[in-house]
Amino acid sequence: MSPLSLEQVAQHKSPESCWIIIRNKVYDVTEFLQEHPGGAEVILKYAGRDATWVYEPIHPPDALEKNLPPSKHLGPLGLDSARLLDEERQNAKKTKDEIRVEEARRRLPPLSRILSLSDMENVATQILSHRAYAYYASAADDEISSMENARAFTRFFFQARVMRPVATCDPSTTILGFKSAIPIFVSGAALAKLGHPNGEINITKGAFNEGIIQMVSSNASLSPTAIMQASDQTQPLFFQLYKHRDDDIAERRVREIETLGYKAIFLTVDAIVAGNRERDIRSPWVLDEQDNGPVYYQPESVGTKTIEVNIFGTAGALIANDDRDMTWEKTIPWLRRISRLPIVIKGIQCVQDAILAAEAGVDGILISNHGGRQLDYSLPPMETLYALRRQRPEVFDQLEVYIDGGVRRGTDVVKAVCLGARAVGLGRPFLYAQSAYGEAGVSKLVQILRREIVTAMQLVGASSVNDLLPEMIQRVDWQTPYAKL
Amino acid sequence: MSPLSLEQVAQHKSPESCWIIIRNKVYDVTEFLQEHPGGAEVILKYAGRDATWVYEPIHPPDALEKNLPPSKHLGPLGLDSARLLDEERQNAKKTKDEIRVEEARRRLPPLSRILSLSDMENVATQILSHRAYAYYASAADDEISSMENARAFTRFFFQARVMRPVATCDPSTTILGFKSAIPIFVSGAALAKLGHPNGEINITKGAFNEGIIQMVSSNASLSPTAIMQASDQTQPLFFQLYKHRDDDIAERRVREIETLGYKAIFLTVDAIVAGNRERDIRSPWVLDEQDNGPVYYQPESVGTKTIEVNIFGTAGALIANDDRDMTWEKTIPWLRRISRLPIVIKGIQCVQDAILAAEAGVDGILISNHGGRQLDYSLPPMETLYALRRQRPEVFDQLEVYIDGGVRRGTDVVKAVCLGARAVGLGRPFLYAQSAYGEAGVSKLVQILRREIVTAMQLVGASSVNDLLPEMIQRVDWQTPYAKL
Amino acid sequence: MSPLSLEQVAQHKSPESCWIIIRNKVYDVTEFLQEHPGGAEVILKYAGRDATWVYEPIHPPDALEKNLPPSKHLGPLGLDSARLLDEERQNAKKTKDEIRVEEARRRLPPLSRILSLSDMENVATQILSHRAYAYYASAADDEISSMENARAFTRFFFQARVMRPVATCDPSTTILGFKSAIPIFVSGAALAKLGHPNGEINITKGAFNEGIIQMVSSNASLSPTAIMQASDQTQPLFFQLYKHRDDDIAERRVREIETLGYKAIFLTVDAIVAGNRERDIRSPWVLDEQDNGPVYYQPESVGTKTIEVNIFGTAGALIANDDRDMTWEKTIPWLRRISRLPIVIKGIQCVQDAILAAEAGVDGILISNHGGRQLDYSLPPMETLYALRRQRPEVFDQLEVYIDGGVRRGTDVVKAVCLGARAVGLGRPFLYAQSAYGEAGVSKLVQILRREIVTAMQLVGASSVNDLLPEMIQRVDWQTPYAKL
Amino acid sequence: MSPLSLEQVAQHKSPESCWIIIRNKVYDVTEFLQEHPGGAEVILKYAGRDATWVYEPIHPPDALEKNLPPSKHLGPLGLDSARLLDEERQNAKKTKDEIRVEEARRRLPPLSRILSLSDMENVATQILSHRAYAYYASAADDEISSMENARAFTRFFFQARVMRPVATCDPSTTILGFKSAIPIFVSGAALAKLGHPNGEINITKGAFNEGIIQMVSSNASLSPTAIMQASDQTQPLFFQLYKHRDDDIAERRVREIETLGYKAIFLTVDAIVAGNRERDIRSPWVLDEQDNGPVYYQPESVGTKTIEVNIFGTAGALIANDDRDMTWEKTIPWLRRISRLPIVIKGIQCVQDAILAAEAGVDGILISNHGGRQLDYSLPPMETLYALRRQRPEVFDQLEVYIDGGVRRGTDVVKAVCLGARAVGLGRPFLYAQSAYGEAGVSKLVQILRREIVTAMQLVGASSVNDLLPEMIQRVDWQTPYAKL
Repeated sequence: MSPLSLEQVAQHKSPESCWIIIRNKVYDVTEFLQEHPGGAEVILKYAGRDATWVYEPIHPPDALEKNLPPSKHLGPLGLDSARLLDEERQNAKKTKDEIRVEEARRRLPPLSRILSLSDMENVATQILSHRAYAYYASAADDEISSMENARAFTRFFFQARVMRPVATCDPSTTILGFKSAIPIFVSGAALAKLGHPNGEINITKGAFNEGIIQMVSSNASLSPTAIMQASDQTQPLFFQLYKHRDDDIAERRVREIETLGYKAIFLTVDAIVAGNRERDIRSPWVLDEQDNGPVYYQPESVGTKTIEVNIFGTAGALIANDDRDMTWEKTIPWLRRISRLPIVIKGIQCVQDAILAAEAGVDGILISNHGGRQLDYSLPPMETLYALRRQRPEVFDQLEVYIDGGVRRGTDVVKAVCLGARAVGLGRPFLYAQSAYGEAGVSKLVQILRREIVTAMQLVGASSVNDLLPEMIQRVDWQTPYAKL
Repeated sequence: MSPLSLEQVAQHKSPESCWIIIRNKVYDVTEFLQEHPGGAEVILKYAGRDATWVYEPIHPPDALEKNLPPSKHLGPLGLDSARLLDEERQNAKKTKDEIRVEEARRRLPPLSRILSLSDMENVATQILSHRAYAYYASAADDEISSMENARAFTRFFFQARVMRPVATCDPSTTILGFKSAIPIFVSGAALAKLGHPNGEINITKGAFNEGIIQMVSSNASLSPTAIMQASDQTQPLFFQLYKHRDDDIAERRVREIETLGYKAIFLTVDAIVAGNRERDIRSPWVLDEQDNGPVYYQPESVGTKTIEVNIFGTAGALIANDDRDMTWEKTIPWLRRISRLPIVIKGIQCVQDAILAAEAGVDGILISNHGGRQLDYSLPPMETLYALRRQRPEVFDQLEVYIDGGVRRGTDVVKAVCLGARAVGLGRPFLYAQSAYGEAGVSKLVQILRREIVTAMQLVGASSVNDLLPEMIQRVDWQTPYAKL
Repeated sequence: MSPLSLEQVAQHKSPESCWIIIRNKVYDVTEFLQEHPGGAEVILKYAGRDATWVYEPIHPPDALEKNLPPSKHLGPLGLDSARLLDEERQNAKKTKDEIRVEEARRRLPPLSRILSLSDMENVATQILSHRAYAYYASAADDEISSMENARAFTRFFFQARVMRPVATCDPSTTILGFKSAIPIFVSGAALAKLGHPNGEINITKGAFNEGIIQMVSSNASLSPTAIMQASDQTQPLFFQLYKHRDDDIAERRVREIETLGYKAIFLTVDAIVAGNRERDIRSPWVLDEQDNGPVYYQPESVGTKTIEVNIFGTAGALIANDDRDMTWEKTIPWLRRISRLPIVIKGIQCVQDAILAAEAGVDGILISNHGGRQLDYSLPPMETLYALRRQRPEVFDQLEVYIDGGVRRGTDVVKAVCLGARAVGLGRPFLYAQSAYGEAGVSKLVQILRREIVTAMQLVGASSVNDLLPEMIQRVDWQTPYAKL
Repeated sequence: MSPLSLEQVAQHKSPESCWIIIRNKVYDVTEFLQEHPGGAEVILKYAGRDATWVYEPIHPPDALEKNLPPSKHLGPLGLDSARLLDEERQNAKKTKDEIRVEEARRRLPPLSRILSLSDMENVATQILSHRAYAYYASAADDEISSMENARAFTRFFFQARVMRPVATCDPSTTILGFKSAIPIFVSGAALAKLGHPNGEINITKGAFNEGIIQMVSSNASLSPTAIMQASDQTQPLFFQLYKHRDDDIAERRVREIETLGYKAIFLTVDAIVAGNRERDIRSPWVLDEQDNGPVYYQPESVGTKTIEVNIFGTAGALIANDDRDMTWEKTIPWLRRISRLPIVIKGIQCVQDAILAAEAGVDGILISNHGGRQLDYSLPPMETLYALRRQRPEVFDQLEVYIDGGVRRGTDVVKAVCLGARAVGLGRPFLYAQSAYGEAGVSKLVQILRREIVTAMQLVGASSVNDLLPEMIQRVDWQTPYAKL
């Protein structure tokens, strides 16, 4: 393949012939336009041009190579063109947001001054690009479930026990049989490269350092292979599966995952359609206004029957091809048939479905409303856990129960474990930590939680997770207004 | 009739002889003064002068023609006088509020940036005149019921079901047998011309575009005839009846409505006297102060026995002649006798009256407190719906149940439908949408709700409205502080 | 008695010989110092000087004359001295607070713009002197009960009934057999002269104008005689009795009241000791700081055993001689023996005492916590009323039940009447109204409430107070954050 | 021992040889480094230098002398060196915080203007050094329990009784048989010298003046001996014991305490490990930033396995050697064996442990969560007291029950006594009072509470603490938003 020039590429900027440049390589994506989960429009915006900077942070590096037949790999950009592109990039005027981020990153506080997950989040809100923060923080509609997930924990108080020997206190547990230093795990945090160039691998390494388990998202900005390669040989990794609507494609994915060495499948059932994440949708408009000022209404021609508006958030499209017709009867047996891995259903939101999951014989359930990013006013997982404990305690003997959503303190973890959760997942906090400090931030995060968990365990009178019992928890009938959530 | 001059008209400015000019025509309203629902005083303020600008936004164009005998139509203004009047209007100094509105209208955002009903309302608060916004937004006393109507929805969370086939999801339903694309309808939004020159017709056309049904108010700023003429032949329209205290007048109205082709009667029973809407009452004072500065107290002569103050809000007078002695025993049979249209009682506010309505054999009830504009501390409709579902579920089999008040999100609609509401009415949001963007705004509003409803249905595990069930809803014992209401 | 000079008076400025000037008359109060309910200290501050301006607003004009033997009336000030005093008064530098009040009084809005009790209170906060507002508004400790009194009403919603004939609606009732135009009365509002020179008589006249009943306080700034004289012959007045600890003095007081023509005795039992009203106590310090700047700590000599600080609020002393040993067994029979007037116990704060009152055979109880001015965290009267209705409904048949505290809207009144209150008392609102607008303000206040009450009655479906029933009220399990209290 | 020079001392600034100067005496602390409860690091920061100013406010003066063998007392500083040191101290540039405190102390209001504990706290927040306030005010994690302790009282209202003889009212009680003028005591307030040079002795003397009892903390900044010596011979003092992990050391401590004349032992069981007090931990960073500006992140070398950060709050280390393996079976009998003093368990946090304490035969329990400084989300003591009263009333007959945490008003005390508390402890308020006004502040504090308690008792209808009964309290189902906490 002979090198191509910018001028050549520039001629292919229409739906009829659409070329784009990624990392100085040229691809013909004309036929792929209709298949792109994010829609053709997004690609066409960069037709005939370099698209590296928008492609990189949200795709595994090999995504395009894997999805395009070799014949569409048109070859490298010529040296002169590459140099020209490079100059362009360097001379490009920085956006106000880029300038803000650069400045904020220079003022990053020392890691030793990060005392809590809330400190970590505060730092992240400073140093993240508007786009990244909007994607990470955004949630469905009015973000009620997202915020109530955290607030739910503030209704649970401890009936702490005293005069118990707790000088030695072991916070470790197992998850699906795999050792975990403390009862937490990384819950499906995707698009980590939006916040840090190393992306999800920061989390993988930090998790190994601290002895906890990472559940890797289908939507990670790095491929499952890349993440597995970056992991330690002895380190268990779980996989968060978004099942493709085509069973064959889905089966290939599952087999690939098992072959790669992932140790469990967390089947995601709470994100079969895109949640309405307005903060994320608004993000490009905000950035545009910052640099170019506001835009105003031009009256549409009256009489138009429908005024369709295309709405794409950063990740709305990630699940465009997911299976929206999964059922207990069909999907679980199919998955059991094609894989020997333990199966956990991620996204249980009420007691009744927890019972169905137990009847379906899965190995675990992750009570989750996807961090409030899908259905607003879905019940907070901590409340669902509490309801399950009160209404159907036997379920805790039939499978492992986890929750995620809103966990910000060691006491949150201890409360959930008291009520029967085997472990508790965290998502956004890991994204914030790795965005600000990379791998070191991830380690710090776990260390903070470890210290908080051990302190809380000792002060409630528990020397191991087995000592944490439902009677140590009282759900109160008031609501603290003091919590910083 | 020979043309009249401004000077001639100006001589008739007393209660004894009172002429006014509307759209360059002169009317003798001396005898009508006492019959004017809004009181004589309001008219006398413009005696001998042009009153077009205050008349237009709150009356159907033909209101005066219909109410005055032909002999009182004194004829057109002379050309010179008309031209003079026109010049005066154009030279009239703009009020601060008019200047503010013009400026805000220039800064109207593109419709594509309106993501939610809350966005739409925010825009409307910018571009509406103070008077219009005061009329639309105002509610009784401290506006508690108005605000609690919306807040009530925040106490209802979803117990979402997963692993159900929802790839295809149909949000349509029927209302009194008429097809509705989604389970919402336009609930009695009046005086639309205050916000947009096309008035209620914006809503009629937008509703048709999107396949939903409009309930037209007796107090619309356009006549039922005009609205019907603007509608599509295939489009069902409902009529919100304020029954006149005189049964004969009321009967003529009902027969006219039926003849015009309206498909159902929503008999309004929650607005038999005027609510105390202080924001609306204060509106002219605020405007006056903006332009002319504050006014101060002049001590009244002591000893005066009573100090009566006349209080008229924009719409207080609209119902001055309404029937305040309606009863189940008398009014329903009367209405059945004179009309074959389905009857819905609009304004049920407790379980006991819902039962009485079912016993009276009406076709439906609209649980409503008139958007909180009538009796402050009337229970939010969503709470009354919930109480009805728990206490008397059989009522839902005896008639169709609707609610209105405070609906702002697709999830609100889905919650109400889960509890048994056939459909949910919205009023103010339609007024805001048509005020800002005319017909296109109305379409946009329905599209937003449609998207939100479908997403919520899929995420709770429903592929049609029949799948929405009470057990999917949990009323929680906490209150979210996060909702932007 | 020969006229006295300022120089002569000035020589008597010690506890051994203490003269003061009130309205240009000289009094020897040396022997009275120890008897003064407000303490000697307050008087000594003005020993040998004019004390008119501090005396007037908080004492009935004849208080001194009645309490001092004639021999201590030393006679008038000489003409020159009187003129000198007058000049001094006029040349006295105004305090910052006086200047603020004068300015605010000039900006008083027209009475026609006062739409609600909240408007009236807002005006009053502008035009009242700091001292008057501090006295009127202050309440015990953290003022929780004071504020919760009002907030309690926001937990009671209406189950409004429709389709009932309410075209004619009569809000009148009787209290102890006396006609009242609406179910409200003036509840023991004292020291009215602090806000307006006419004092309580403004209320007396306004109440007569509007057909409601005034309960006159023992602590009024006008004597019971003066108020009775200012009243209409046909006008019933009630008397709020603070029983003196000396039964003989108390008996004389009761007989005087009965002779004067008062129609009932409201025996005050919730104010036997002074409440801790910090706002009131702080008031002189605030004023002093405004004009003279802050004061700083001078270390006390260490070793002092106790550091007693004398704390007197404006009214703390008013009840210094009241009976703190009243009992059901002793006090009620005593009062029955000396008076034929109906007896109402003012200050019932729980169900159990309501029952004891019924057993003691009194004619009525006023459930009250003294506007929250006495015991902070005493239950709001509306809550106690609700508890009484639920726990002991028969008590409502045994005596008349009233409540006061926190009533600000017609709906508040209607709610209380629904639960069984015969009438509802208001105190502070009358003080605010008369302070701002004198008698006209009082009339306006009642007219506002009348309009609100009638509207609410019609909208809940009641044409008379007898139609107001407990089932029209629902106590809700949420709390509105919107109420402006 | 010959005098030493600054130069000589300066040469011993390493872990191998570490000398420090305290009050112009030189000590060799090399061997003590590892034993220091606060860690070696803190000492090494001052190795070879004067450490008086950091040592003084948080250690009893004799702490070092007692802990170091005589051979390590190297002798006094030479006169010239002492003078030099003195000059250095006086010439040292004041920190911004020191300047702020000096200024604020000059503006201290007169004690007579302090009306409430809240006034006292407000003053203290002005005049305390940042470090002192951070230590006093800080609490665990998000300080929820700390704030909820106080807020809990706002859910308890009075059902006040009237018509009861209360002219004479005696608020006194006994605690473990010792007379207390009012039902409060000083609860373990430590490190008083941080706020005032006289330290805990201010409290001792003020408590004696006002007739209440002080519980002296193991962590006081004065020794138990010094405090006992400063006390009146007739004054009972209690001792708050932090049991050393070494039973022999602990026994010596107990015997010493008993010999000194302390009258009871409050065994602390809620602080066996350090709470996570972030405000306290952050304190030195805040001060450093004030004077020297912010510090920024220097990326750590990637690959480091763990990034341990040493976290020491002012007091975190105070309990480093405490016994974390206490049990009912072992510790109570041990304590009974070595001491005849009454035993109270301080730190009961749930009903179940209150029962175990009664079964263990101790003399009292102090329901406490350590002012919220240990386990965040530990239940507020007032709620635990209420639960104990409802679930196990017999426990109140088996031992004396006290609570502490969040008490700020006389009504708080009266509420707790109504529910069965024998007395109520206060900690922070005493620290604030003595910091601002020394002994006089402590007296004032008790006088305020005494006045508030007596007023509340009279107004609920109680003439002695025995008249305070559970039925006078109602726990309400709403939460006041008005309390200033």
